[in-house]
Amino acid sequence: MTPPLTIQSHSHPYTVEHFLTLDAALASITPRERAFWLVDQRFAGLYPSLIAFAPVERTVQVAASEEQKSFEMLAPIFLELLRKGLKRDGLLVVVGGGVLQDIGCFIATVLFRGVRWELVPTTLLAQADSCIGSKSSINIGSYKNQIGTFYPPHRVLLIPGVLATLPADEIRSGLGEVIKLQLLTGEAGFRELLEDLRGFTGQPEILAKWVKRSMEVKKPYIETDEYDRGIRNLLNYGHTFGHAYESATHYGIPHGIAVILGILTATRLSARLGLVPTAHADELDMLLAPWHRPFGETLRRAPRDAIFAAIKHDKKNTGDVVNCILTHGFGRMEKRRVAMAEDLVPAVNSCIDTGLAQAEASPSLLTKVTIS
Amino acid sequence: MTPPLTIQSHSHPYTVEHFLTLDAALASITPRERAFWLVDQRFAGLYPSLIAFAPVERTVQVAASEEQKSFEMLAPIFLELLRKGLKRDGLLVVVGGGVLQDIGCFIATVLFRGVRWELVPTTLLAQADSCIGSKSSINIGSYKNQIGTFYPPHRVLLIPGVLATLPADEIRSGLGEVIKLQLLTGEAGFRELLEDLRGFTGQPEILAKWVKRSMEVKKPYIETDEYDRGIRNLLNYGHTFGHAYESATHYGIPHGIAVILGILTATRLSARLGLVPTAHADELDMLLAPWHRPFGETLRRAPRDAIFAAIKHDKKNTGDVVNCILTHGFGRMEKRRVAMAEDLVPAVNSCIDTGLAQAEASPSLLTKVTIS
Repeated sequence: MTPPLTIQSHSHPYTVEHFLTLDAALASITPRERAFWLVDQRFAGLYPSLIAFAPVERTVQVAASEEQKSFEMLAPIFLELLRKGLKRDGLLVVVGGGVLQDIGCFIATVLFRGVRWELVPTTLLAQADSCIGSKSSINIGSYKNQIGTFYPPHRVLLIPGVLATLPADEIRSGLGEVIKLQLLTGEAGFRELLEDLRGFTGQPEILAKWVKRSMEVKKPYIETDEYDRGIRNLLNYGHTFGHAYESATHYGIPHGIAVILGILTATRLSARLGLVPTAHADELDMLLAPWHRPFGETLRRAPRDAIFAAIKHDKKNTGDVVNCILTHGFGRMEKRRVAMAEDLVPAVNSCIDTGLAQAEASPSLLTKVTIS
Repeated sequence: MTPPLTIQSHSHPYTVEHFLTLDAALASITPRERAFWLVDQRFAGLYPSLIAFAPVERTVQVAASEEQKSFEMLAPIFLELLRKGLKRDGLLVVVGGGVLQDIGCFIATVLFRGVRWELVPTTLLAQADSCIGSKSSINIGSYKNQIGTFYPPHRVLLIPGVLATLPADEIRSGLGEVIKLQLLTGEAGFRELLEDLRGFTGQPEILAKWVKRSMEVKKPYIETDEYDRGIRNLLNYGHTFGHAYESATHYGIPHGIAVILGILTATRLSARLGLVPTAHADELDMLLAPWHRPFGETLRRAPRDAIFAAIKHDKKNTGDVVNCILTHGFGRMEKRRVAMAEDLVPAVNSCIDTGLAQAEASPSLLTKVTIS
């Protein structure tokens, strides 16, 4: 069994622990009588044995939707937990993907000014990426992710086995962040990942391996710069564009896949600025096409002005200059301010109209990835 | 002029700075064009010159009520600040007393996962006590103060002059915490304070002196134990009972005055447990009667069972044993677990029915304190 990984944090150190089965993970939670549960509705439906650990009288079920992740929707969840009897010496166990993690982390941060919480991530995105790093993000009104906190769980319980019940698009979305992390770490890891993914149909041992490798890559970034003021920014590689692509398609592109498309855009922009050879951008276009298809087409249909408006309105940007994570090649990312009109707009257009389109049309990539 | 005081915090060090006038304080805020304002409605009415610094298009006015301090009431304030244009590189200036501080601190903690904020406390309670220590407390549903954060302002701007416009009961309430802090620090400070308060009619120089002295007493507690897990608990001297007295009288007793009544109860309980001579409790009853009158009477009229129910339901207690800050004498407080039925109930009854009543009936204390 994989040994636990310890993560340092301003708040408290915490462990990422690996389990073979859901029951084994849940049995490790203690004290069980003071544990209250915040559980993804869909997951609870798939795993009825959960009720042995999470009794109705101490469990709140939540639908994992973007709307649910709103400040305005939080009060009933707080109140249900309080009414059910959660006290400051209690424990909040959060079972679900990114939305549940955001809600659970926010609640755990501010309830009693901080209550112990443990996280059972159930999606690949949550297992391979968001479960470490302390952040919560909450929407308010029409403002996305403008409210949040830094407060890691006290334990993360990883069960790669539960990924088997995820829809294929959820797996593909999670692979987006897995790919991003390997691009950050260097060429060898990235090529090994692509090799493992050749013929990938959802094998749990492949997922387990790359969940573990992803944690290892992310760990130093969040330990060195938990509050995201410096080197942790590099984890946003692909995200300035990715977020805009999600928003301009009304979330018609899953997050991790939007990140892949964003990475290709950032690489194309880096080539335009002379940071990296154009051949590097061309190669990534070809290598990653199987992992975003058919969402390049979704992106081509999105109104281009909505994309640029979203980039301009990103909370990190101010007007005509945009903060981007660019690349000098595998494992060599850098944050730069890029001129919107002169460089960013032409690079986005070139990426969407030429790079993506040519790669997707390539006969050598016709084999569609099928994840069972 | 009093030199600034620097306070250490897990989040960031911050300064408490003294100003002679409101205008001088507000003029020190920078960058002024990125400052957004959260201002107590009543205070804004009293100081129309505020608008020169806090223009309507960047200001949100809030009524300082216990209801306003609710999680359910926060969303419109967040949204108004966002709509008015507060960005992550902006600054939130909070002008008001405890309620404004709670709301402002909570918002500043979670907006953009933490935005810079500065505090202009306008009540004696806020100037002498709550403005340092990092805490926010927010109600939800019928649950009081169950939600909150630790996030100090980046600067505290103290203007003793603004206390002149406070209602007399607000001053008396603030004096409750001032008295508590001096009891914590030892006999000399406490007696000097009472001496200064003899014939006190609201003189600003007396208030300024004891605001400063209060900060000095509180500083080491919050620097050593910001998260309130150990020695900072002692600042709750009088609060277990004080909170219950507020609640059982439906907030008919101002906070600081309830704290004085709570201190007298905790001292009576300490005497019952043999920690301190009964004469010490008797003396405090006599010395403090002018500073809580006529609210001893309000307390005597409160249903006794409501008081005990409130003590039991305090978030820090669990059932038949109650955590109390007790005293071994001036400057020697200690946290102990006390048996509800055997010791706490008789001590509360004895304090309310005998100690308070006898002191208030004493002819030597007939002079009523009048604060102009």
